[in-house]
Amino acid sequence: MAEVSNQTPLSDDMLRDMNRYWHAANYLAAGMIYLRDNPLLREPLKPEHIKNRLLGHWGSSPGQSFVLTHLNRAIKARDLNMIYISGPGHGAPASLAHAYLDGHYSEIYPDCAESEGGMRRFFGRFSFPGGVGSHCTPETPGSIHEGGELGYSLSHAFGAAFDNPDLVVALTIGDGEAETGPLATSWHSNKFLNPIRDGAVLPVLHLNGYKIANPTVLARIPEEELEMLLKGYGWKPYFVSGDDPEPMHRKMAATLDQCLDEIAAIQRHARDNDDPTRPRWPMIVLRTPKGWTGPKEVHGHKVEGTWRAHQVPVTDAATDRKSLHIVEDWLRSYAPHTLFDEAGKLVDSLRALAPEGARRISANPHANGGTLCKALDMPDFREFAVEVKAPAASYTSPTEALGRFLCGVMRRNMTNFRVFGPDETASNKLTAIYEASGKTWIAESEPDDADGGDLAPDGRVMEMLSEHTLEGWLEGYLLTGRHGFFASYEAFVHVIDSMFNQHAKWLEKSKKELGWRLPVPSLNLLITSLVWRQDHNGFTHQDPGFLDVVTNKSPDVVRIYLPPDANCLLSVADHCLRSRDYVNVIVADKQPHLQYLDMDAAIVHCTKGIGIWDWASTDQGCEPDVVMACAGDIATMEALAATQLLREHFPELKVRFVNVVDLYRLMPNDDHPHGLSDRDFDSLFTTDKPVIFNFHSYATLVHKLTYRRKNHANFHVHGYRERGNINTPLELAIINGVDRFTLAIDAIDRVPKLRGVGDHAKEWLRGEIIAHQAHAYREGIDAEAIRDWTWSA
Amino acid sequence: MAEVSNQTPLSDDMLRDMNRYWHAANYLAAGMIYLRDNPLLREPLKPEHIKNRLLGHWGSSPGQSFVLTHLNRAIKARDLNMIYISGPGHGAPASLAHAYLDGHYSEIYPDCAESEGGMRRFFGRFSFPGGVGSHCTPETPGSIHEGGELGYSLSHAFGAAFDNPDLVVALTIGDGEAETGPLATSWHSNKFLNPIRDGAVLPVLHLNGYKIANPTVLARIPEEELEMLLKGYGWKPYFVSGDDPEPMHRKMAATLDQCLDEIAAIQRHARDNDDPTRPRWPMIVLRTPKGWTGPKEVHGHKVEGTWRAHQVPVTDAATDRKSLHIVEDWLRSYAPHTLFDEAGKLVDSLRALAPEGARRISANPHANGGTLCKALDMPDFREFAVEVKAPAASYTSPTEALGRFLCGVMRRNMTNFRVFGPDETASNKLTAIYEASGKTWIAESEPDDADGGDLAPDGRVMEMLSEHTLEGWLEGYLLTGRHGFFASYEAFVHVIDSMFNQHAKWLEKSKKELGWRLPVPSLNLLITSLVWRQDHNGFTHQDPGFLDVVTNKSPDVVRIYLPPDANCLLSVADHCLRSRDYVNVIVADKQPHLQYLDMDAAIVHCTKGIGIWDWASTDQGCEPDVVMACAGDIATMEALAATQLLREHFPELKVRFVNVVDLYRLMPNDDHPHGLSDRDFDSLFTTDKPVIFNFHSYATLVHKLTYRRKNHANFHVHGYRERGNINTPLELAIINGVDRFTLAIDAIDRVPKLRGVGDHAKEWLRGEIIAHQAHAYREGIDAEAIRDWTWSA
Repeated sequence: MAEVSNQTPLSDDMLRDMNRYWHAANYLAAGMIYLRDNPLLREPLKPEHIKNRLLGHWGSSPGQSFVLTHLNRAIKARDLNMIYISGPGHGAPASLAHAYLDGHYSEIYPDCAESEGGMRRFFGRFSFPGGVGSHCTPETPGSIHEGGELGYSLSHAFGAAFDNPDLVVALTIGDGEAETGPLATSWHSNKFLNPIRDGAVLPVLHLNGYKIANPTVLARIPEEELEMLLKGYGWKPYFVSGDDPEPMHRKMAATLDQCLDEIAAIQRHARDNDDPTRPRWPMIVLRTPKGWTGPKEVHGHKVEGTWRAHQVPVTDAATDRKSLHIVEDWLRSYAPHTLFDEAGKLVDSLRALAPEGARRISANPHANGGTLCKALDMPDFREFAVEVKAPAASYTSPTEALGRFLCGVMRRNMTNFRVFGPDETASNKLTAIYEASGKTWIAESEPDDADGGDLAPDGRVMEMLSEHTLEGWLEGYLLTGRHGFFASYEAFVHVIDSMFNQHAKWLEKSKKELGWRLPVPSLNLLITSLVWRQDHNGFTHQDPGFLDVVTNKSPDVVRIYLPPDANCLLSVADHCLRSRDYVNVIVADKQPHLQYLDMDAAIVHCTKGIGIWDWASTDQGCEPDVVMACAGDIATMEALAATQLLREHFPELKVRFVNVVDLYRLMPNDDHPHGLSDRDFDSLFTTDKPVIFNFHSYATLVHKLTYRRKNHANFHVHGYRERGNINTPLELAIINGVDRFTLAIDAIDRVPKLRGVGDHAKEWLRGEIIAHQAHAYREGIDAEAIRDWTWSA
Repeated sequence: MAEVSNQTPLSDDMLRDMNRYWHAANYLAAGMIYLRDNPLLREPLKPEHIKNRLLGHWGSSPGQSFVLTHLNRAIKARDLNMIYISGPGHGAPASLAHAYLDGHYSEIYPDCAESEGGMRRFFGRFSFPGGVGSHCTPETPGSIHEGGELGYSLSHAFGAAFDNPDLVVALTIGDGEAETGPLATSWHSNKFLNPIRDGAVLPVLHLNGYKIANPTVLARIPEEELEMLLKGYGWKPYFVSGDDPEPMHRKMAATLDQCLDEIAAIQRHARDNDDPTRPRWPMIVLRTPKGWTGPKEVHGHKVEGTWRAHQVPVTDAATDRKSLHIVEDWLRSYAPHTLFDEAGKLVDSLRALAPEGARRISANPHANGGTLCKALDMPDFREFAVEVKAPAASYTSPTEALGRFLCGVMRRNMTNFRVFGPDETASNKLTAIYEASGKTWIAESEPDDADGGDLAPDGRVMEMLSEHTLEGWLEGYLLTGRHGFFASYEAFVHVIDSMFNQHAKWLEKSKKELGWRLPVPSLNLLITSLVWRQDHNGFTHQDPGFLDVVTNKSPDVVRIYLPPDANCLLSVADHCLRSRDYVNVIVADKQPHLQYLDMDAAIVHCTKGIGIWDWASTDQGCEPDVVMACAGDIATMEALAATQLLREHFPELKVRFVNVVDLYRLMPNDDHPHGLSDRDFDSLFTTDKPVIFNFHSYATLVHKLTYRRKNHANFHVHGYRERGNINTPLELAIINGVDRFTLAIDAIDRVPKLRGVGDHAKEWLRGEIIAHQAHAYREGIDAEAIRDWTWSA
């Protein structure tokens, strides 16, 4: 097992002081759980000092505080630019304690000053209503990592390190967390980190042996096996194991020095020789008891080093005398009176161990990315416009046009913009990006690898077949103040539903409640390879339901756009790339689609977010007989074709054509800032006329957004009905009822004055459906009748 | 690198025949992509024989067909009971070809007979409307694995192997798929497979080097590193690498023999000695060119062995003479006239290589689990009833009661029932299960590991901190005909949103379209640790939106239950465990909650799925002034308390109290089989009275289900508004507007006759809100005022 043999970087004095610093952090972590009063134990501990309800998690804190104490020494000794990510579940007390000890916590939250009263409040707000919980949240200074859901610490760390050549991202990975899929594959991120251009990631895999109630897999395999696993992932692991603090401090200090020396040597070599060959980055495996330094035994049960140390090690301190003594003995074992001065502040000799100012791990500006964020240097998106001479007369792949624009963005922002996609950038027709930059790849490569996008150590297009890793990288990149764009197949964006949820929650908290966190670039998520064009992938690739997940999040942080064509997509993308603190979800397909608006019209339309297309309407500003509305590319095309069919059959019929780009326009304006007022909504959709709404996704989402509108009872929404197989586009539209014929039939049924009169037309339309289906079953997938159509004015 | 040295199990004749069998499979895989006619190439290939649109994926097929050819030999030689899982993306042609060659395909789909015409139709339905796509779907005989979304092949394989001691589950894992998180952690499944009780899993990691457009990580790290990685995961890898068929056949045959010998020896040792110590199971790393045996070069570009072989290697065969020749040469290189007889059937000498009857890998009954499924031996759930003497007078943890029932189920079904949960079975208060069986654990253990549930090699409770792996195991277990129960934290069930989607799609297809697939046990998913009781976990643990994902799926396969108390939960769980072919989602909390119904009343209520609670109503069968409705435990309690407040303030007010257990009761009956008719719905909810609906999840979901109901405009739904922090239960209810006071105020506002009259009461209620919030902020999380309440009749 690789252990560092020279264990003498610490003088005895330094070791003693570091141990005391660690004790101070442990004292605070325990105090947060237990003390409502008597925070410095200046009087004997009494039941009334104990919190009424004991909440919090002790298990992971001492190990993480140990790591942080050692990182402090390294930062000071080497003047490191370092941030820290706390991966293990419920590990916040360690980060909170260190932020309090280095003074930054009190700067941000002055009510928690460095005083006895401040410490009481610091303890009090932990697991208290309106306070802070037991995992790292946006409220935690120095953190970019939402610790509530496990699995993303390592990918977040890499995201932070990309394009930050001087930054070292240290992180602790919990051995529970390490069992998750996202964490397990994110070890491979080292094949995507360029030692010349990017910073370093230093993982500490913390084997404290237990999750909530079970031992962990990685702690219960032979150490040789674990070492092979980590080496197999491409890392160079060093082991630091034990429970006796003194030798552990020596080992940890020596090992940390070894790792940081190696990191420096790797970077020096790579940068001096312009050699980005994949290094074997060092990492640490730290094996310590769970709840280290906590109570050894309670009520006859072993606690330290077992699952019993996970949460509150002594639960009856307020009611059981013996338990109260255990807690008091435990807290006093850290000798708080020697750690904090009269006023209640950490004594100067210990404070001197912490870095200063922005070097403090709780105050590093990279962990508050908005402070470092530079706006993108944006090209004029109008220059990437697709020529549209007449509506619905020519075809273009919207994402192909977007690719050219993103290429332009990339060219001007070669240090703070990246594009992410799971091996699908080319499949999603964003290939033009590669003209500005290739794909990041630090593994082996071969001459025939290039598929239009070169594999290159300095590529800026990130592709790995793991949506989890990409999303984690992107979040880490954004939260440290840079910009990004993520494209994913629509059906499989559900893979990162929960990551989206957590990021949206992070944004909401930081934006609405934490003035000290400055806005960060939005997370721009392009959903493509859409449900309606899964010609040969079929049913499994048909799920447009991510929008339902999105609409459950706070209106303050989510936006959804369904640009109907390429120019609208460009306008929307430009807007999103300039925005801050949102998750922007853009739905646009990669296949060639009909184009409707020239760039000027597209800008007007996207700025309004919803609007009447006069050229497709026959109501001439009067009250229409029927409103044909739509959102989404295929939905728009079919709605337009339906309008044309209606016009052919009923020249006198007044049809108003409404297209929706910004989905939240549909919501009432008191529910969402983008929402239309009732007055504006009614003026578009009328208050009593039938509305045939053709929607990209599941129909119920439109009802969810509009149910409070006056005319809602007249909304007849068509959308995906979970019916699919290998289908031609038109056939798929037909079986889900979003095709032109079904829409036209629905309109005829809903317009009172067509009742009876429309029967003949309906019969003809039904015949068309049957004819097209027969054609599809005869001719196969190549029967792309859906495209054999243009608008005739 | 571990390679098998003795490579002589194959006679020259056998080798030649196996190679020809492989050629036959390759021919079929290529024919599926290209041929609309002339399926046996009995005349020169002409453009009109080529399909109009070329769709499909060639890249992975020859490698998988190679594996399947060798598995056939092993099955015959050893009379193995073996199924096969195809992990790589778009690998169906290999499985389809083998199913056609062994005759089973034609048995299931008689139109695709073993004849020239049958082969034409077999080719024709591939990527044709209403036909089959390029990845394994329910339509694929012999498959239990939905191959549309990548990452789950290995966990599915383990699920199939559990409790099937005689089964060998062979699978190919794609090197693209291997980059996903779920796959990366599922290698650790070997710590949960008991060699005595369970079958074996034999993975073949197929390094064909490329994903869609990129090389793969595992193919581009040094082989030593890959070997360490796999050994680190606990496997014993054997490498088979090359591109020359003859030596490759010899190597593969010898390696497969070696692996199967080792598997047999491991099982013999474990079973003879009753020694479940974790073995190092063998596995194979197969490195072959992508698109092996396909065209070497097209238009001057290398194809075989590159990303260009991923999909259609020659795209212009119908229009380019040279390309047509390339395709013809390629197809003829397999010498189809020597493989198929006059009638178009595989020649007898080759057919003899395939196993027979149910031993055929396409026909093994384990891959059609319904055929083997035995109903659970169910205890009477009434025996686990919680005593309820009066409504809302006592507290119980619903999941604790459920745990006792599941223990009873487990005791009677110790070979075909398992319970799954991510390290949370105890946290979710299902601890009683452990009385029947411990937790499966085949890694190292220590004396203090037991937390009430012993770790044991023969445990039947599956716990690993990976929702992905658990869900994959469970799906594999169910699809092979066994029964299971999965419990997960509500917020983190989103981790498996996309797995749920794919499983629901699988069920829908197999249930509605494939008569030969018999019903399998339902996937029972308990969502617990609910949004409303995240006292110290806070905002990140608050997301009840999984139900929105569920309601997007076909009504034929999804069910949602929100039992309001323990006895209802028992009744619902009993129903779900007996059902087939559904995903049953049950929402029930782990914290102590008020109990309302005794068992008899609970059964009646759950059977109806929705109903008026007379004891809580004051309308006495008349038309009420207001309907107070609810779904979910906390939602029910607060609605009841609101009803009581209204009664106290307005003794004359007629309140009808409606509780919903079966959420789909709300939907119209033509949209969901559980839906109420409009008549029944109206008789419960009236057609014109205000309905205050207190809902467990996001309010919009109720609108989504009810927007077509006559009284919908009067539905005022309260639910989670994405507002949370560390909160007391009542405070959390208050800030989201689902608390008793807000509900009562809303009711007062909505009932015309209380207008003005109710102002004083509203003022008092608002005062209560402020008082309770102040109390919470003073007293902390222990201020559980929400519980200080019982119903007074």
